[in-house]
Amino acid sequence: MEPVSHVPLFEAERIDDLLTHEMKIIQSHEVFCFSMDAVLLARFASVPKRGRVLDMCTGNGAIPLIMTTRTPEATFDGIEIQERLFSMASRNVTLNGLDGRVTMHHGDVKEAVERFGHGKFDLITCNPPYMPAMSGEQNIREHFAIARHEILLNLEDVIRVGSQLLKNGGKLAMVHRSTRLVDIISYMRKYGMEPKRMRLVYPRRDAEPNMVLIEGMRGGKPELRIQPPLIVYEKGEEYCEELQEIYFGRRDSLA
Amino acid sequence: MEPVSHVPLFEAERIDDLLTHEMKIIQSHEVFCFSMDAVLLARFASVPKRGRVLDMCTGNGAIPLIMTTRTPEATFDGIEIQERLFSMASRNVTLNGLDGRVTMHHGDVKEAVERFGHGKFDLITCNPPYMPAMSGEQNIREHFAIARHEILLNLEDVIRVGSQLLKNGGKLAMVHRSTRLVDIISYMRKYGMEPKRMRLVYPRRDAEPNMVLIEGMRGGKPELRIQPPLIVYEKGEEYCEELQEIYFGRRDSLA
Repeated sequence: MEPVSHVPLFEAERIDDLLTHEMKIIQSHEVFCFSMDAVLLARFASVPKRGRVLDMCTGNGAIPLIMTTRTPEATFDGIEIQERLFSMASRNVTLNGLDGRVTMHHGDVKEAVERFGHGKFDLITCNPPYMPAMSGEQNIREHFAIARHEILLNLEDVIRVGSQLLKNGGKLAMVHRSTRLVDIISYMRKYGMEPKRMRLVYPRRDAEPNMVLIEGMRGGKPELRIQPPLIVYEKGEEYCEELQEIYFGRRDSLA
Repeated sequence: MEPVSHVPLFEAERIDDLLTHEMKIIQSHEVFCFSMDAVLLARFASVPKRGRVLDMCTGNGAIPLIMTTRTPEATFDGIEIQERLFSMASRNVTLNGLDGRVTMHHGDVKEAVERFGHGKFDLITCNPPYMPAMSGEQNIREHFAIARHEILLNLEDVIRVGSQLLKNGGKLAMVHRSTRLVDIISYMRKYGMEPKRMRLVYPRRDAEPNMVLIEGMRGGKPELRIQPPLIVYEKGEEYCEELQEIYFGRRDSLA
């Protein structure tokens, strides 16, 4: 596909398919690419019909872009600390004709309450850095390292700030490694959010899950609904039906 | 099968197959029968090779009876507040030739620390009452009601008492409705136990889970391992392979 003429591409960037409604996304294998985690979170979150949605740690903006297809009227903000990713995210909004509906912000999630104010959002999404700051797996390339490791932002920051930004009754939807589930649940309760909906992503039928999708409600009453398992490779090397539909299949209708 | 002559059976009682090592169990459809939950918990818990194990809310004793087959040397206690169930549990020990290895106690779990002392056990198991005390589902028959509703004991009691009875490094393994997962995790952390291992039981591949098996370690470090899903009815009306083996299949060897 030819890039849209008024959206510049910089070195090592390319335009890929966002797999939803024929949307496109600028990314760079040197810096950041959206992942299955982002796609699953954008489809898991309870996107409101109207109101305001914020994606924290938005990277190149895949999550708010996909979520626009699931709501007729809600508006979206994204915040990203890394300038190169923020630049891609901003151009991705224009590339998909979403100026006015999605606004990208360059800044630190830890200062998001000063920027946006308390209790402003109906939904917050976040695909945060997964790995501890000093983990042996730490990526030597700085852009990947910041996006993947808790260098500038940790799990407690995400949940504390998310809670402050949400309206009462608003929701925080996250994707994270399932080994951190206990911490996620504990921090949600600590900051006044009740985990209400959860789904585990199992690579295979006989494997431990590697990811958890979880949504908490600010001021919600206790009762967790756990959704059916998502088993990525149901038979051998093939994606399960649900993922085949997302990656190769039918177009989504509005949620 | 004929009852073992020296173990009396009372009105409305019968002897059923415990599905493990040709063990037998006295139960009564008027009072209490062991369930799949008990069988799964007895197989999920980290039974130590030696040391002491306590089953709280033991009912007719199915969980400690099954666990004896998974360890060469550990000894077992069970505690049950209902006299008719305690009586069945005691006779079940004798029926299976386990006097000396399993001891049943008639009493209240809330007084178990006075009875056994602090920090005495390596493993505690519990299949507690699942339903809130005043739930609309409350069973009109008193024995079932006490076993199923939080009338005499609630979830926080189970976890608080369990923590006091455990050695440091000891484990508490529970089965409960998966809607209570957030409470279980929160109470475990509140009482110094870290959830370390968990498994969700899904009735079907495309259904929400109805049960969670979870094990916490007193003084453990954070990191939850979630096991592969247990999908009860994998194809139509048939149990999955794992349950077929338990209910109809091969004999277990020692764990």
